Amino acid sequence: LFRISDFGFRIFIVMRIVDLIHAKRHGRPAAAGDIRRLVEDYTSGKIPDYQVAAWLMAVCFRGLDDAELAALTDAMMRSGEVFDLSKIDGVKADKHSTGGVGDKVSLVLAPLAAACGLRVPMISGRGLGHTGGTLDKLESIPGFNVNLSGAQFRRQLARLGVAMIGQTDRFVPADKKMYALRDVTATVESIPLIAASIMSKKLAEGCEALVLDVKVGNGAFMADRRRATDLARTMIAIGRRMGRRVAALLTDMNQPTGRAIGNANEVIEAIECLKGGGPDDLRRVTLALTERMLTLGGLAGTRVAAAALIRRALDSGAALELFRKTIEAQGGDPRVIDDTRRLRLAPKDGVVLAPRAGWLSNIQTRQVGIAAAILGAGRQTTDDRIDCGVGLWYESRLGEKLEKGQSIFRARYRKAAAWAEAERLLAAALTLTEERTPPPRLILGTIDE
Amino acid sequence: LFRISDFGFRIFIVMRIVDLIHAKRHGRPAAAGDIRRLVEDYTSGKIPDYQVAAWLMAVCFRGLDDAELAALTDAMMRSGEVFDLSKIDGVKADKHSTGGVGDKVSLVLAPLAAACGLRVPMISGRGLGHTGGTLDKLESIPGFNVNLSGAQFRRQLARLGVAMIGQTDRFVPADKKMYALRDVTATVESIPLIAASIMSKKLAEGCEALVLDVKVGNGAFMADRRRATDLARTMIAIGRRMGRRVAALLTDMNQPTGRAIGNANEVIEAIECLKGGGPDDLRRVTLALTERMLTLGGLAGTRVAAAALIRRALDSGAALELFRKTIEAQGGDPRVIDDTRRLRLAPKDGVVLAPRAGWLSNIQTRQVGIAAAILGAGRQTTDDRIDCGVGLWYESRLGEKLEKGQSIFRARYRKAAAWAEAERLLAAALTLTEERTPPPRLILGTIDE
Repeated sequence: LFRISDFGFRIFIVMRIVDLIHAKRHGRPAAAGDIRRLVEDYTSGKIPDYQVAAWLMAVCFRGLDDAELAALTDAMMRSGEVFDLSKIDGVKADKHSTGGVGDKVSLVLAPLAAACGLRVPMISGRGLGHTGGTLDKLESIPGFNVNLSGAQFRRQLARLGVAMIGQTDRFVPADKKMYALRDVTATVESIPLIAASIMSKKLAEGCEALVLDVKVGNGAFMADRRRATDLARTMIAIGRRMGRRVAALLTDMNQPTGRAIGNANEVIEAIECLKGGGPDDLRRVTLALTERMLTLGGLAGTRVAAAALIRRALDSGAALELFRKTIEAQGGDPRVIDDTRRLRLAPKDGVVLAPRAGWLSNIQTRQVGIAAAILGAGRQTTDDRIDCGVGLWYESRLGEKLEKGQSIFRARYRKAAAWAEAERLLAAALTLTEERTPPPRLILGTIDE
Repeated sequence: LFRISDFGFRIFIVMRIVDLIHAKRHGRPAAAGDIRRLVEDYTSGKIPDYQVAAWLMAVCFRGLDDAELAALTDAMMRSGEVFDLSKIDGVKADKHSTGGVGDKVSLVLAPLAAACGLRVPMISGRGLGHTGGTLDKLESIPGFNVNLSGAQFRRQLARLGVAMIGQTDRFVPADKKMYALRDVTATVESIPLIAASIMSKKLAEGCEALVLDVKVGNGAFMADRRRATDLARTMIAIGRRMGRRVAALLTDMNQPTGRAIGNANEVIEAIECLKGGGPDDLRRVTLALTERMLTLGGLAGTRVAAAALIRRALDSGAALELFRKTIEAQGGDPRVIDDTRRLRLAPKDGVVLAPRAGWLSNIQTRQVGIAAAILGAGRQTTDDRIDCGVGLWYESRLGEKLEKGQSIFRARYRKAAAWAEAERLLAAALTLTEERTPPPRLILGTIDE
C-alpha cells in the first residue's frame, strides 16, 4: 500500500536517489549497483540535475571509497562507446596530462612511443580557459582530421601504431553531462570526481597501460604537490581495480612547457623536438613520460633500456617519419614536417620586454594561458572558434637574470585590441626580483603502480 | 572583453552564483546582499534548482553564521506577503511546534492565550508524513474556513484576538520552493535551514513574541536533545537579530501528545482540555507554553502570575468561549463545542491489545503517526485528501504496567485493508518489558531569549 521511508512515504524512484544522497551526506558508502544506476539514470535523463548536484556536493565533502570510485568510473566509461582493441597486436598505451600552458608533449610523445613499438590510441580534448588542447593544435595542420570513425581509428592504429582523435558524442556521455553540471555547481575541484572523469575517458580508449602527467603549479589545476599526489594515487587505484597498468609523473607547471603557447606555433615546436631540437624542458618531460610508458608496457625492462629505444627512434628519424605518416593518414598536409612555414602564423608581431633588470622569480602561468586565449588561441566557451595562427613565445625561464628591455614574451596576433589586453596581462604576470629565486624542479617525482 | 574567474572565464551571472556556492563549500561566509540575491533570484526562477541544490548541500556541511542566517530568513520572509499588524492594539504573540504525533496544543493554546489578553495571529500548516497539521484538524469542524484574506485575518484578530489560518501561495514562496527542493535532495535535516524556514514563516505573520515548542524524541524531527537545543538556540538567535522576543521549550515526543491522533478526535480532545479536562500531558505542555507566551509578551511578570491568568481564562470559560467565537467567525459550526458528536468519527472500531503482560517501555512514535496516516488521517503527498473521521487513541503511557489483553490503541477506521496495515505497524511499534523503564520527562527544559 505505502512505501515507508524515514521521512514519511514517497514514490519508489525518488526515494532511492534521495537515500543515496542522504547516505553520502552522512559518509556511508553506496553499493556499486546504486552508483551504476545513478550514472545510468542521470545520463538517460531519469534523474534530474538538482539531485545529482546535491550528490556531487556531498561527494566533495565525503569523498568516495575505492569500490565506489571504480563503480563510478566503470559506469561512466560504459555510458557510451568503449573501444575494443584486443584484436590489435601489441601493447596499447597512452599518456594523459592534467593540463597546462604550452603543453605540446602529446604531439611528440604519441609518434615517438609508437616508433618504439607501443600502440598509442590517443583520444584528446580541446582547450578551454587557460589550457590548450591537443585537438586544436593538430587542427592547425592544414587538412588534419581528428574525427575518425571507430573503424578508421582501429585500422590506423593497427597499421601505423598511432592515431590521434577527438571524442565523439557517443564517447563517455555521462562524463560530458556530469562535467557540465559540476562546472556550474562549484563541484569541479574534487579529487575523486576529477579522477573518475579522467579515467573513464582513458579506459574507454581501450589502453592497457597509461602514464599520467600530473601537473603541479600555478598554471595547473592542482597548485600544490600534496593534492597532485592524491590525484595521481587515486587514478592509479582506479586503474588497478580495473586491471590496467597505471603510473604517474608529477611535473612542474609554474611556467609554460617549452616556448610556444598557441596552436600552430606549438606544432612547430613539437616538430623541432622530433627532429632532435626544441626546448630542453619539453624534451626532458616528453622523454621521461615516454620512458615510463615503455617500461609500463613491458617494451623495456629498465629506464636505461627505454631511453636507448627512444634515442634510436629519434636519431633514426623513425619518430618524425611516424608523425608525418600520421598526418598523412588523417588527411593533413605532411609537408609541414619539412617546411614548418606552411603552419601559418598571424601577421602582427608583439613583444613584452623586461621593464628593468632583475631575476625572473615568478610567473603567473594561468594568466599567460589566458593571455594566449584572449589573442584567439583559446576558448571562453566550448562554442568559440580558435585562431590557429596566433600565439605567444615564452623566451625566458624562471631563475634567469634579465636585462632591462630584454624580451620575455614574443607574440603573433591579429587584433590590436586583443593584444593590448594580453600585453597588460602578461606584464602583470611577471615578478622580477633583485635576488635570485631558485627555479622549480621540472620533474617532481614518479608515482608507481 | 573577458571576465576572468579562477577557472577561466564565464558570463557574469553564472559566475556569481558559482562563486557563492564555491565560497560556502570552502566555509567562507557570504555577504548579506549575496544571500538576499540568491533567495530572490531562485524564487523568481533566475537561478536553476541544481545550483541551489549544491549550495544547500554545502550549507548542510558548513552551516551559516548569524549574519547569513538573518539575511536568509529575512529574504525568505520578504519573498512574499508580510503581515503588518502594527495597527492592531496589544501584544501579538504566537507559538510554533516543530511537529509531532497527536500534537493538538495549538487548538487549545490559541484561544487560551487570546483569552488571557494576547493577540494570536496563528498561521499553521498541514500534516505530511507521520505528523498532523493544525489546518487539517480545524477543517474537521464542519464549515471551518482557514483561507481568510489578509484583511479578514487582521479584522478578526483585532475583534477577537485570535485567528487561525493557512498560508496562501503568496506567503513566503521562497520557503515553499526551497523546501520542495530540500525534500528531494536530502538537505532537509540542517539546523540553520530548518531554523530559517520556520522563522521566515513565523516572522512574516507579524508576531512580536514567539514561543517555540521544540519536540525531542522518536516521533520528532530531532531525536536527540543536543540537536534540539541547537535548533532552539539558532531560532532564538534569528529572532533576536530581527528584533523579536523568542523563547523555546524542549518537550518530549517519545510518545503521542495526549490520547487522540487524527483530526476530528483531536479537536474533541482539545475541546475537553478547554473545558478543564483532557489528558494530563496535553494540559501540562499547553499551560507551560502559554505561560511562557504571557511572560514573553509582558502580560505577566512571573510564571506564577501567568498561571493565575490562565487558570482564570479556563475556569471562567473565557478560553472555551473564544474558541467557539473563532469557529463561528471562520464559518464553522460552533455547536461542536457543546456537542462534540457533531465531529463525526468513522464507523468501524479497531483495537490493539497487549499480547502479554509487561511494562510499556518504548513506542516508535513515528510509526504510530504513519499508522494514523495510513488510515487516512495523514498525507503521503501534499495532494492527498484527509479523512477527518478516522483516527487512533493511545490509551496507555510509557512506564505503565499493562495486563495481557489490555487495550493499548483504539481506532476508528473506514477501510479494513488500511486498518490491517495500521494494526500491524502499531503492534510492531510497541516494546513491553519485564522490568520498568522510567518514562521520559515531559518538559525537558526552557531556553530563554
